[in-house]
Amino acid sequence: MKRSNRLVVLSEFFIENPRKHTQLPYFVELCQTTKSSISEDLDIIDSVLQSQGIGYLERTTGAGGGVKFIPKAKEEISNKFIDELIATLEDPSRILPGGYLYMTDILGDPKMIREIGRIFASRFADLDIDVIVTVATKGIPLAYAVASFLNVPVVIVRRDPKVTEGSSVSINYVSGSSRKIQTMVLPKRSFKEGSNVCIIDDFMKAGGTINGMVNLLAEFDAKVKAIGVLAEADDEEEDRVVDTYTSLIKITKLDMANKQIGIETGNYFNTNVEE
Amino acid sequence: MKRSNRLVVLSEFFIENPRKHTQLPYFVELCQTTKSSISEDLDIIDSVLQSQGIGYLERTTGAGGGVKFIPKAKEEISNKFIDELIATLEDPSRILPGGYLYMTDILGDPKMIREIGRIFASRFADLDIDVIVTVATKGIPLAYAVASFLNVPVVIVRRDPKVTEGSSVSINYVSGSSRKIQTMVLPKRSFKEGSNVCIIDDFMKAGGTINGMVNLLAEFDAKVKAIGVLAEADDEEEDRVVDTYTSLIKITKLDMANKQIGIETGNYFNTNVEE
Repeated sequence: MKRSNRLVVLSEFFIENPRKHTQLPYFVELCQTTKSSISEDLDIIDSVLQSQGIGYLERTTGAGGGVKFIPKAKEEISNKFIDELIATLEDPSRILPGGYLYMTDILGDPKMIREIGRIFASRFADLDIDVIVTVATKGIPLAYAVASFLNVPVVIVRRDPKVTEGSSVSINYVSGSSRKIQTMVLPKRSFKEGSNVCIIDDFMKAGGTINGMVNLLAEFDAKVKAIGVLAEADDEEEDRVVDTYTSLIKITKLDMANKQIGIETGNYFNTNVEE
Repeated sequence: MKRSNRLVVLSEFFIENPRKHTQLPYFVELCQTTKSSISEDLDIIDSVLQSQGIGYLERTTGAGGGVKFIPKAKEEISNKFIDELIATLEDPSRILPGGYLYMTDILGDPKMIREIGRIFASRFADLDIDVIVTVATKGIPLAYAVASFLNVPVVIVRRDPKVTEGSSVSINYVSGSSRKIQTMVLPKRSFKEGSNVCIIDDFMKAGGTINGMVNLLAEFDAKVKAIGVLAEADDEEEDRVVDTYTSLIKITKLDMANKQIGIETGNYFNTNVEE
């Protein structure tokens, strides 16, 4: 295979298989070429990925050595994306009765979801995450997007046990905003004990739901290494029960009477943030 | 930018933006090169995508002309993927009480989900789909995967109305397998009337849930152009209420007493199938 063809084949492979460790002989076979040619191809691809702000190739040498594509969103690109998202969300027609913000269309756009996933995955890239956990329903697409960039599975916490998932572990928790007692369920065979977990959700107010997930995960001896929420609500009246999390946007004002919305960037973009 | 670099940039662009119509001047600007060089790059990429069974570039000339990457899974690759999936699912430890098959791990694997999405999107590529519709919860990741390849949004039908989605339309329907009356809800601002819809779900037995969705979509004057289910259950005792659908696998036997599972390829792989 000629270099030009190899570059297309290899680029496609890396974009489709983020964080997959692959040994060079695989590519030698795939492209019917020599190891040194592949090596030069990887140099080219790595430099382009870096200059485009898409990520980079991580290469290891020695026995078992190989290459891995690590997606990494460039800061300027993430900032621009979030600024545009905020501008879209600040449309007053998005205010719903009860002081909610209509975001369903954003969460229904696979391209948007993928970009948000890329941003979270860039931040959580070095945490050795084994599994992404979310709760049904709205966080699901975001969770899959993050998972696809980190090359790990998704486990979904449900509010009702399903017969098709076998035996399960459940806990009761108090929802932060409604103060109601709710139930959460996770199938027993969801993941191995002691896994490193990243929790992903679309929205956090007082954090009761996420706190419930943290408690449920404790039953599996899971280590919660990161919590990512697309939007947090700035709620001064309530004590937040979760304090280490990463948010992309922060809803500071939702004034139904005056049709005003205030949205800022979340703590992801703070320079000195504790996470 | 040199050809080798351009090929990486362009390949990444197409893989990340399936079915997005882009005019050549965009690439000329992006790569700081000439239109004729871009044209040659596109020839190379198109031929590699085709030979690798990933898809092809659709090019249009004239004013407003441009290029679009159409993902198309090669038949041999899809067949091999489904054969492996069937082999994985035929493990007797997957039989759950009540005659269900444990598939949660498969549905939790973003790479698997993406491949399944690619297979459906290849079949439904020419149907001018405007939106993918699924029902919470298990079909959601599949729906997003199909949507990402078709470059269309996802709308999720819920079983309970959510205050964060505004006013909604609901219908009651009889679940095929349990014969219970259930409710389905779709927010009013989900999509435009008269849209071309593709329904995606993980599992279909008698088809009551999908039939419910079809009826609910009728309230939006939507045209259901395709129905795709990952697994259908071969249920001779019941009359199927949905008869035009595309399935990837068919569960023919789930014998709990003898720990036997029988799975075949679905009608997607039939040569003379009415869809």
